[in-house]
Amino acid sequence: MHEFDFISRYVKPLTGGKADALGLADDAAVMGVPAGMDLVLTKDMLQEGVHFVGDEPARLIAKKLLRTNLSDLAAMGAKPYGYLLGLGLPSRIGQNWMADFAAGLAEDNALFGVHVLGGDTTRTKSHISLSLAALGHVPQGHALQRCGAREGDKLYMSGTLGDAALGLRVKTGEMVGLDALDAAYLLERYHVPQPRLALGQALRIVATSCMDISDGLLQDAGHIAGASEVGITIWRDALPLSVAALQAVKLYGEQAWQWIVAGGDDYELLVTLPPHTTAPEGLTCIGEVVRGSGVVLVDENGVDITPQVRGYQHF
Amino acid sequence: MHEFDFISRYVKPLTGGKADALGLADDAAVMGVPAGMDLVLTKDMLQEGVHFVGDEPARLIAKKLLRTNLSDLAAMGAKPYGYLLGLGLPSRIGQNWMADFAAGLAEDNALFGVHVLGGDTTRTKSHISLSLAALGHVPQGHALQRCGAREGDKLYMSGTLGDAALGLRVKTGEMVGLDALDAAYLLERYHVPQPRLALGQALRIVATSCMDISDGLLQDAGHIAGASEVGITIWRDALPLSVAALQAVKLYGEQAWQWIVAGGDDYELLVTLPPHTTAPEGLTCIGEVVRGSGVVLVDENGVDITPQVRGYQHF
Repeated sequence: MHEFDFISRYVKPLTGGKADALGLADDAAVMGVPAGMDLVLTKDMLQEGVHFVGDEPARLIAKKLLRTNLSDLAAMGAKPYGYLLGLGLPSRIGQNWMADFAAGLAEDNALFGVHVLGGDTTRTKSHISLSLAALGHVPQGHALQRCGAREGDKLYMSGTLGDAALGLRVKTGEMVGLDALDAAYLLERYHVPQPRLALGQALRIVATSCMDISDGLLQDAGHIAGASEVGITIWRDALPLSVAALQAVKLYGEQAWQWIVAGGDDYELLVTLPPHTTAPEGLTCIGEVVRGSGVVLVDENGVDITPQVRGYQHF
Repeated sequence: MHEFDFISRYVKPLTGGKADALGLADDAAVMGVPAGMDLVLTKDMLQEGVHFVGDEPARLIAKKLLRTNLSDLAAMGAKPYGYLLGLGLPSRIGQNWMADFAAGLAEDNALFGVHVLGGDTTRTKSHISLSLAALGHVPQGHALQRCGAREGDKLYMSGTLGDAALGLRVKTGEMVGLDALDAAYLLERYHVPQPRLALGQALRIVATSCMDISDGLLQDAGHIAGASEVGITIWRDALPLSVAALQAVKLYGEQAWQWIVAGGDDYELLVTLPPHTTAPEGLTCIGEVVRGSGVVLVDENGVDITPQVRGYQHF
């Protein structure tokens, strides 16, 4: 299929006809930024064979690509606006795949109120290489950052921890024996992250720091600790686990805990709030900010049980 | 090498310490947009084995990645501001390659007044996959587009045509017998595009349409013709050729012309100006806008000599 037909059939509808995309007929997108707003920009790539196996439905790959970027906007307290889409596709990828991929994006465009602003479609030699740059807005000077946590703050997270990491182990076969429903739930959590956009925006006026958990709780908490020059204590007993994750702990014990506290792909928000602040709905208190540096995981007796591997290494 | 050390050593210096990159320590970049300015956003990928062979010096690959995006900004009349950098690197890529790649970006950051705003570094399974999203500013409502050409306008281009396409044939060995200096010049033009940023900005008040020639003159002129609903006649005799390209024509005749008029990677600006307009310096008049549709290449007698292949197909 001719490149321009391909773009016109599958990508152009994803602009929603918005003027700033210029019908994908120009060299770049052009748009205004609302008065009093800052621009928030993020960019994540997904590589076949690294971030996804390749045999997943294209619709799910599309959603993961978009949602991992939207999660970065959520972590800054931004309202998403639109995105540039980069498709690197080997020649074996046909129209069925692309139609399914575009359908996934169309669903999520409607769900999150975003649209394609522009981008690039290229061939690759062998593997699918996807790239997305998302753009959002935040009231001037009010973006959430990682650097504001203070001693005495409490540490919170949204949703439940470790489901995606456990879902990956279901997928790879490293974890077996779960109920079919639990396994399906974990797989879904691995494939389709839920960017916490409304929560991120609600946190702008109360949180002292915020980020999304993408590479493992312990490692990511370390980024807040480092940027804020504080220490963080996490209470394992307080970590919010889904029913399926509790099943996994029952079956796999410490191995499951390792996956849960250091696994990636959660895309939940990790937040610090000043003491005595009422946390917005959807947050669970999982620890506290202390003097010092680094992150320590403790059991119900306060004993340090921090594992050696703290998160996912991309390199 | 650990991912965070890698980013901190090679990518962080490319932010130039600018506040909007937040030290690459956050989930996204945050910035204001100057009052009265529109935002211009573009995104191009470069894939190993498709857009570059892979054995080029990393410094040159870096420059091509940045400059192809800056050329898109030039085509819109935008002033470049900064960019998000996406690196997909297979495990064979070591620190030497990355140091050289970063050095190329550092040189061009200084040259073009841009800096890294953020981005993403990932592993790939086999090939290098690069992605860059560039951001620029243009006075509100004054971005150049492809859709404003009118019957009677003259067609202009910057620089010389076909050097990059001929340089690629030097590289692949399809073209031999040139003087060493000519061959080196063509190779340089293939490897290191010159985004026409000052020219693009100067054209904002006079041009009726503008784009950059990236996929071949005839095909790209067709985009202006299509978007503007006009026809375009291009005079082959008027096309600006470098000394090296003239050598290529002498040696390879019509085959060289085919490469020149339909080859990619020029990154020169293609512009229409109203009749009787004094063209800014650096432009050569190469044709005219006529009633009708489509693009025709004519010889000195006005005879249609349009070749069948009009440009590069990415798919």
